[in-house]
Amino acid sequence: VICTGSELLQGHTLNSNLAFLGAQLDGIGLAVSREVSVPDGREAIAAAVLEELRTADVLITVGGLGPTSDDLTREAVAELLGLPLRLDAEVLRAIESYLADRKIRVPAQALRIQAMVPETALALPNLNGTAPGLWCRSGGKTVILLPGPPRELEPMFVESVRPRLQAMCPPQTYRRVIRICGLGESTIAEKVDSLLASFPGIEPAYCATPALVDVRLSAELALQPRLDQAMDQLIALLGNAVLPADCPTLAAAVGAILRQRGWSLATAESCTGGKIAAAMTDQPGASAFFAGAVVAYSNEWKQHALGVRPDSLARYGAVSAEVAREMLDGLLSRYDVDAGIAVTGIAGPSGGTDGKPVGLVYIATGAGHSVQVQRFSFPGNRDSVRTRTAAVALNQLRLQLLHETASASGGGVNP
Amino acid sequence: VICTGSELLQGHTLNSNLAFLGAQLDGIGLAVSREVSVPDGREAIAAAVLEELRTADVLITVGGLGPTSDDLTREAVAELLGLPLRLDAEVLRAIESYLADRKIRVPAQALRIQAMVPETALALPNLNGTAPGLWCRSGGKTVILLPGPPRELEPMFVESVRPRLQAMCPPQTYRRVIRICGLGESTIAEKVDSLLASFPGIEPAYCATPALVDVRLSAELALQPRLDQAMDQLIALLGNAVLPADCPTLAAAVGAILRQRGWSLATAESCTGGKIAAAMTDQPGASAFFAGAVVAYSNEWKQHALGVRPDSLARYGAVSAEVAREMLDGLLSRYDVDAGIAVTGIAGPSGGTDGKPVGLVYIATGAGHSVQVQRFSFPGNRDSVRTRTAAVALNQLRLQLLHETASASGGGVNP
Repeated sequence: VICTGSELLQGHTLNSNLAFLGAQLDGIGLAVSREVSVPDGREAIAAAVLEELRTADVLITVGGLGPTSDDLTREAVAELLGLPLRLDAEVLRAIESYLADRKIRVPAQALRIQAMVPETALALPNLNGTAPGLWCRSGGKTVILLPGPPRELEPMFVESVRPRLQAMCPPQTYRRVIRICGLGESTIAEKVDSLLASFPGIEPAYCATPALVDVRLSAELALQPRLDQAMDQLIALLGNAVLPADCPTLAAAVGAILRQRGWSLATAESCTGGKIAAAMTDQPGASAFFAGAVVAYSNEWKQHALGVRPDSLARYGAVSAEVAREMLDGLLSRYDVDAGIAVTGIAGPSGGTDGKPVGLVYIATGAGHSVQVQRFSFPGNRDSVRTRTAAVALNQLRLQLLHETASASGGGVNP
Repeated sequence: VICTGSELLQGHTLNSNLAFLGAQLDGIGLAVSREVSVPDGREAIAAAVLEELRTADVLITVGGLGPTSDDLTREAVAELLGLPLRLDAEVLRAIESYLADRKIRVPAQALRIQAMVPETALALPNLNGTAPGLWCRSGGKTVILLPGPPRELEPMFVESVRPRLQAMCPPQTYRRVIRICGLGESTIAEKVDSLLASFPGIEPAYCATPALVDVRLSAELALQPRLDQAMDQLIALLGNAVLPADCPTLAAAVGAILRQRGWSLATAESCTGGKIAAAMTDQPGASAFFAGAVVAYSNEWKQHALGVRPDSLARYGAVSAEVAREMLDGLLSRYDVDAGIAVTGIAGPSGGTDGKPVGLVYIATGAGHSVQVQRFSFPGNRDSVRTRTAAVALNQLRLQLLHETASASGGGVNP
């Protein structure tokens, strides 16, 4: 993969296109063997293309297809592959119609440049922009040119590039991935290793983030039924720690349960400062299951907006199981919701003491009639404590909701 | 720059180290000419180092210095440069003491590997981990090996690498950057161009994100006094649109003003769902100026928690200037704060109508006795609308606070 754009090398832009392409290609069993980022400029792009084509069978370039003088990938690749550029009338019409729909006027020359297609190359439709992608073949090599903006690149890859790559390079291995929350990587690896002792030929791989661990099992194609069997056993073994396949995040998993039950959620947040509410409302259609939040950062807000007793604040401190519980109780009794999350903790860097160090967090969750309050001690800096707190709180509620469904009990789990 | 690690090519990890190094190097006038990401594996790393050293004078490698079998950068570089690895007793002692302080036990072999230093190379202290960085010189080339974890790489670069690079490559140009909020890139460029007509030899450069535009002026060293003069004039011309040099974000700029005045802020958020509160509380010490927030996602919450009148919701709709104003009034009258932000809008993808399309947002801000309500129409998807709303709301309050300070007026600006 070659990514073009000086902004990638000057620290202005994180290379999210590479992460997207890497994950997509990995998903269809293809490995990126190298990635090169080069600044804008025809020489740098041409040198990188020439060099990578010495070893790569398939080369993807990202960026440099637009109408400005920085956009030189098309010309550089066409020349290196010996494929003359021709104006493609159909592409030109597609660009004109895209711009007309949006009432955008562009100089004719800028239009024409983006409608130039290397001879024998295939133009890949761009549904969110003007420049098409280009699929070029020459001398046994395949070069795929994609636009730089993620909102153009991503749908183009999924719709036009991925199926062609899959047809060209049929998978040699069968793979399945599950996402797990609430268990550490080493705990999971132990369970996986002991399970896979009975399944020779199936290999595990792990990818851990602070809150989630992805486990992938892979094997040669002939072992597909055995791998499915192993994965089903693993899912049964891990139980509720496994997120549903259609929920990529904890907030989505919580939202799906709430939506299915017709329940609404609210949060009362201190140290997370609104991050849990922001994660829940990041999902389209969140109003179906998310009602609102009180960010009670100061003690006055904890009292005034949530009814926490001044006496509890004085006796136990704002970061305590008692105050977390009172925040939750206030939330559930004052606002008409079915489920709630309350968090209070010390995110740091200051504010910690010997008895209550930075990273100490209390999380109270309520679902129906059950209430759970737990104490945590999270490592890391302010950002890390806040992020983990949000994830662990959502998972605590998720497990509680699943448990409620399973047992249909009205009993409370008290701190 | 060579980054090692299969996770970069499989989409698991965004390459934030490259962005950090790019910005840091750019800041001292050095340009990254190419970046290559390679998977773990000695051959891939060695091939990349060999190839990049053909053109680069200074090469930075990232990752592969740890104790596991994946960590092969040290060996690969030492061999290519012809510098035999020697156990460095001082480095070994530093690692042992780092681990002892943290009560971590590690096999002796893992310790020794990380204490191996290529002959004539300089070991760069690692304050947040075990493996030191390595500064190697051979045959006119400089190769700098840095650890992969950002919390180890970043302080090491700032403390040990940057000053050495600055001494080795004294800047050829003088540069200054300002960060601007609330003006578009083209508007800014017009002003800059017309100003720079009187300052030959000074070049502008721009970097735009949805909410902020960075403007950099650069010139050869001899022009430093002229550039300072031009920058001072530009800052005077742009006025409050320029963020203070010590505030990298809008939330920091708002926090700094509030802290200086001893004021407290609260937010009432609908479409942003807590993102403004999360941004404000992202700052250490936020409790000095941030009191709390009400995320009123449902109409019930708008009424119950903020006192919005049911009649206003029925007559004007939840997304209206009237409701934004009532959300702000409720916030300021019910909670004891000096400044407030209220937002209501349609983030999409659903929920839009012909009269109120996706992207329509009302932002009400109050500071002291002044109130401002503005209507916006933001482009883009749900995430983009939410992010822009949060940024524009913070900027609206920032300008209002600055205006209040300047005029010391008690008059209100009404919608």
